[in-house]
Amino acid sequence: MSFSSFNPPVRTLMGPGPSDVHPRVLAAMSRPTIGHLDPTFVGMMDEIKAMLQYAFQTQNALTLPISAPGSAGMETCFVNLVEPGDKVVVCVNGVFGLRMKENVLRCGGTAIVVEDKWGEPVDPAKLEATLANHPDAKIVAFVQAETSTGAQSDARALAEVARRFNCLTIVDAVTSLGGSPLRVDEWGLDAVYSGSQKCLSCAPGLSPLTLSERAVQRIKERKSPVASWFLDLNLVMGYWGSGKRAYHHTAPINALYGLHEALVLLGEEELENSWARHHKHHLALRAGLEAMGLKFYVRDSARLPQLNAIMVPEGINEEELRRRLLEEYNLEIGAGLGALAGKIVRIGLMGYGSNVKNVLYCLAALEEVLAAMRMPVDKGAAERAAHQALA
Amino acid sequence: MSFSSFNPPVRTLMGPGPSDVHPRVLAAMSRPTIGHLDPTFVGMMDEIKAMLQYAFQTQNALTLPISAPGSAGMETCFVNLVEPGDKVVVCVNGVFGLRMKENVLRCGGTAIVVEDKWGEPVDPAKLEATLANHPDAKIVAFVQAETSTGAQSDARALAEVARRFNCLTIVDAVTSLGGSPLRVDEWGLDAVYSGSQKCLSCAPGLSPLTLSERAVQRIKERKSPVASWFLDLNLVMGYWGSGKRAYHHTAPINALYGLHEALVLLGEEELENSWARHHKHHLALRAGLEAMGLKFYVRDSARLPQLNAIMVPEGINEEELRRRLLEEYNLEIGAGLGALAGKIVRIGLMGYGSNVKNVLYCLAALEEVLAAMRMPVDKGAAERAAHQALA
Repeated sequence: MSFSSFNPPVRTLMGPGPSDVHPRVLAAMSRPTIGHLDPTFVGMMDEIKAMLQYAFQTQNALTLPISAPGSAGMETCFVNLVEPGDKVVVCVNGVFGLRMKENVLRCGGTAIVVEDKWGEPVDPAKLEATLANHPDAKIVAFVQAETSTGAQSDARALAEVARRFNCLTIVDAVTSLGGSPLRVDEWGLDAVYSGSQKCLSCAPGLSPLTLSERAVQRIKERKSPVASWFLDLNLVMGYWGSGKRAYHHTAPINALYGLHEALVLLGEEELENSWARHHKHHLALRAGLEAMGLKFYVRDSARLPQLNAIMVPEGINEEELRRRLLEEYNLEIGAGLGALAGKIVRIGLMGYGSNVKNVLYCLAALEEVLAAMRMPVDKGAAERAAHQALA
Repeated sequence: MSFSSFNPPVRTLMGPGPSDVHPRVLAAMSRPTIGHLDPTFVGMMDEIKAMLQYAFQTQNALTLPISAPGSAGMETCFVNLVEPGDKVVVCVNGVFGLRMKENVLRCGGTAIVVEDKWGEPVDPAKLEATLANHPDAKIVAFVQAETSTGAQSDARALAEVARRFNCLTIVDAVTSLGGSPLRVDEWGLDAVYSGSQKCLSCAPGLSPLTLSERAVQRIKERKSPVASWFLDLNLVMGYWGSGKRAYHHTAPINALYGLHEALVLLGEEELENSWARHHKHHLALRAGLEAMGLKFYVRDSARLPQLNAIMVPEGINEEELRRRLLEEYNLEIGAGLGALAGKIVRIGLMGYGSNVKNVLYCLAALEEVLAAMRMPVDKGAAERAAHQALA
């Protein structure tokens, strides 16, 4: 047994997440650990809840981070809200919609799929037609920001349709929270989960979550116990709720220090400014990529500013492209997932990583590597275009 | 929205966990985040698996940390190994045995309880009698180190009985791993889970886990899908396994840096030396506590060295005792849980926190606070007794 301490290389993280973590968040995670029932810690938990309410734009009392990554946040929503036999309409336009469907099945529910082409937003009209055919559906689930394609759907419109058919909504906001508009209360969303490692500039491992009063009521009225003890919100709320804190599980203290700091940073910048910053650097990156002749996979009107899916150019081996960016430039961009593997690469500009330095560095590195891979590139044109877009 | 950065007080953590985190582990968690599919990170994952095999004393290929706290490790074992209708014998001698029973029920299994008094170890003879009455039982679940009482059970003997009745074993080693003897292969244990925040000197949030070939085979032969997508080991192994890594969930990168460093520290000290250190400081603390007239809840032969359950002295309000230790000495000790609330306090000497400084500081602080609470205390006697035990 003789391994040495691990000293990671310093990468620039421009994939689909984790994204670059803010140095203040990294520093926060190394502060001295205290107990999960320490009154000082409980005070910090209350601040996290209040700051998450701000980030989600909600007054929901049940707003907290699940002590595990985003996939566990997804599972928390389904395992608490879906009972065996329940019919759930799942909108699928990418990998994470498929994962939602899988969650419905694992809960013993029936999944009715509304399918849209990968890269397209979910079509509210199709959802409406499906709900008209399934008046006994209880829940509508959709992904606001499809991390696998970079397409964003109109969460407000989809929730409006769902409400007309008396359905609760489960919404994946893993890639949107903090990076592009999300207004839980104004849009009437019921159960929304996210991840710490995207637009919040935080390390991976936690899943912010918020549930409306309606959703909480549904959980209280369940006939069967929640299949998961660890994710049972009745129990989780005993620890995160407002009364005396009952031990449920041992919270990931230092990870929560990091999330707290990330949310303090968001408060300092202010939410709308963060959305605007993500949009601005997206436009700069886009101008640069287009100057290089690269094409977006998603049409303009449906693009997520924080996640840019780019078609792999003819004749370019995308695995080599990503490997060279990583090895020669310490720059990580993402591969395509599922049906899009090999066809697209995903360039994230998320959280702290959505900045001019990353835009210009990524464009310069892409120019060099693509040129080395024998794609005709007018070096410097991309950076000039990006500068122009920023001006 | 105006909250400030959180700067925790510097506590001495001598409760039932989290325990004091080693400074090298704290430092590791603030290293730059890299991607969860980065080849460098994948290399680090392999080292973690190898070091966990060492810590568990096993060759099991399926040995990895679950990306969530110990309760999720427990749930991983049950949700993967128990199918609806399965009969599981659960040994209950404290809070965590009860939680195991709850897990069986949530999985749709039938729980047959073998009950022992809280504070006593699980009785192998009772287990044997129960199994003789339930020849169709498929699994035996027990807690090796009951964190709620400080009692340890004979995992080897219990596993031997279980094997004679063709049962797999699920073993809670949350508080034992790294702190007191645990030999997974030699004792023939099948599914063993632990936590990062006890005797490994690491922050909370991860759950090391190991499964025998028999247990893996059982999962492969399941008739129904695993009810949890997030904890489905078939999928988790696609990411942590030895072949090409398939994305399952985003790993908690920085938390894993911390676990890696904690395991490097364990390798440097060597496992047997760590066990011996925990034992040595337990004896010192015990000598001091007894010199102070305090009494252990668990009989000598069944005590966990890393977790000392002490009877609250007549006339002492334990809530005030703990509050004063925390406020006046920044020293955290644990309350009693469940049926033992108000009756015992729990003093942990775990991981990095199992050292002479903590022993002496705890004894001195207890003397002062108990004296201030009007218990007759011969000040200094406890420290002298501890020194003597250490000599």
